Amino acid sequence: VRVLVCASTGDTSAALAAYGARANIPVVVLLPAGKVSPAQLLQPLAHGAHVVEIDGDFDACMKVIQQVGARDGVLLANSKNPLRLLGQATVAYETVRDLGWRAPDVVVVPSGNLGNIGALYQGFSLLRALGVTRSMPRLFAAQVDAAAPFHAARASGYQAITAVTSKDTLATAIRIGDPVSFSRARRAVLETDGGTTSASEDEVIAGMRALDESGLLACPHTGAAMAGVMQLARAGELGKDDLVVLVSTASGLKFAESKARVTTRAPARARANERAVVDALAGVGVSL
Amino acid sequence: VRVLVCASTGDTSAALAAYGARANIPVVVLLPAGKVSPAQLLQPLAHGAHVVEIDGDFDACMKVIQQVGARDGVLLANSKNPLRLLGQATVAYETVRDLGWRAPDVVVVPSGNLGNIGALYQGFSLLRALGVTRSMPRLFAAQVDAAAPFHAARASGYQAITAVTSKDTLATAIRIGDPVSFSRARRAVLETDGGTTSASEDEVIAGMRALDESGLLACPHTGAAMAGVMQLARAGELGKDDLVVLVSTASGLKFAESKARVTTRAPARARANERAVVDALAGVGVSL
Repeated sequence: VRVLVCASTGDTSAALAAYGARANIPVVVLLPAGKVSPAQLLQPLAHGAHVVEIDGDFDACMKVIQQVGARDGVLLANSKNPLRLLGQATVAYETVRDLGWRAPDVVVVPSGNLGNIGALYQGFSLLRALGVTRSMPRLFAAQVDAAAPFHAARASGYQAITAVTSKDTLATAIRIGDPVSFSRARRAVLETDGGTTSASEDEVIAGMRALDESGLLACPHTGAAMAGVMQLARAGELGKDDLVVLVSTASGLKFAESKARVTTRAPARARANERAVVDALAGVGVSL
Repeated sequence: VRVLVCASTGDTSAALAAYGARANIPVVVLLPAGKVSPAQLLQPLAHGAHVVEIDGDFDACMKVIQQVGARDGVLLANSKNPLRLLGQATVAYETVRDLGWRAPDVVVVPSGNLGNIGALYQGFSLLRALGVTRSMPRLFAAQVDAAAPFHAARASGYQAITAVTSKDTLATAIRIGDPVSFSRARRAVLETDGGTTSASEDEVIAGMRALDESGLLACPHTGAAMAGVMQLARAGELGKDDLVVLVSTASGLKFAESKARVTTRAPARARANERAVVDALAGVGVSL
């Protein structure tokens, strides 16, 4: 392999750039121009990847990267490459290990290009086939209203998918109108009695907030998955004793700007003495 | 404990806010107004902490928080509190465990308030006293020229420290002119044959860049520690076979703005077709 390439609005490019730097293999990253946060752009650039911004959306990037990735000596790191799925399947292994070698009842995963849910299905299937676990979790793909072609396929029992034109969303990394891994994802939800959810932007924000206030700093995609969990709970899809796992796909720190834009909290201000600080805190309901 | 409080320009406030949210205990954070990045402010706010910006520098925040922290039912989480040091000492335990239960030869740690190096000394000392390890690492405090009172104390063999007025620096979290844990830090460097380093802003940037290009996304403080390692190497302080550990105190993602400001790389731009992308990459020396 001479060059590693991927199209990615965030996490894939960051990871590929970091590991490429470590292995001394050049990395090329295609991004849709103007659709990526500075924090997301920072990582591939810092790790020395060759970043090309494309005049087009993520789906356009995917088309070009598949052509580029077919060249000799070029390895494509997107989920079109089955090796990528083997790596992603380790999420299932780590989940089962962290739960004391049992499968969860439900897994909800942020979903755009649909590679993750297919890889989870593959991973959990292998563990059951090996006898490590005795059951399969129900797998749910959490999308956002701005880009929900898989959720829309629910009407047909997930038999067919229709590409959509994606809209603006806080959840930029799952803003994908024409997912490449539909057939794998279909199998994952149909064979596990799983399904899909789709969150409005307000629900994404509420999902992030719920996680933030429990001590986890959530990215918008994880907020979309939390919104999915809330929807499934309201719809009576979750049993009272179900063990539910939510896959968090990125640190909230990568999305400081969009999180700051939707935060309702602001700091108080005080002069540098004890009395002033105590008074300022009393003003927000904290008595010292 | 009714309320947890700390003064912090970054990591302590983020951690305290997250764990406080998890434990359902109110958290109060004092910050110097205008000296904290939006990403650093984001975490305590998102986790529901009560943030008060103080008209003054970090040293002023420390004075006030010690008065506030002395009140009944208020627990101070800064390193003035010995419980905090017990927590920080776990860095030594994890380091030794990750090295297969041996002590490193040298540890370099970003240093401002000087709590960390004292806690590392305590942790490594305990492991040696218990017979887990057979040696102590040499401990080095890495400061920046903008706030280097401990490094300046080198002239007196670390017998006395003089508070300084700190200057602007990328390494905001170690911008401390009047460190509270000097006596613990003095003991750490004197009893381990360690010492101090101090980095210019250019050296901080070069240190970050070296780490970034090896696949780790470094914060400015970690960059200062890397600069310290480079200085020690040039000064002949490091043996050829020395096992050197650099403590990284935060994710580079918390410092996206300052890192973006010093990055020398920029993305290329291309139209959405294979030929255009191949040409753009050839222009930056990558042949596909």
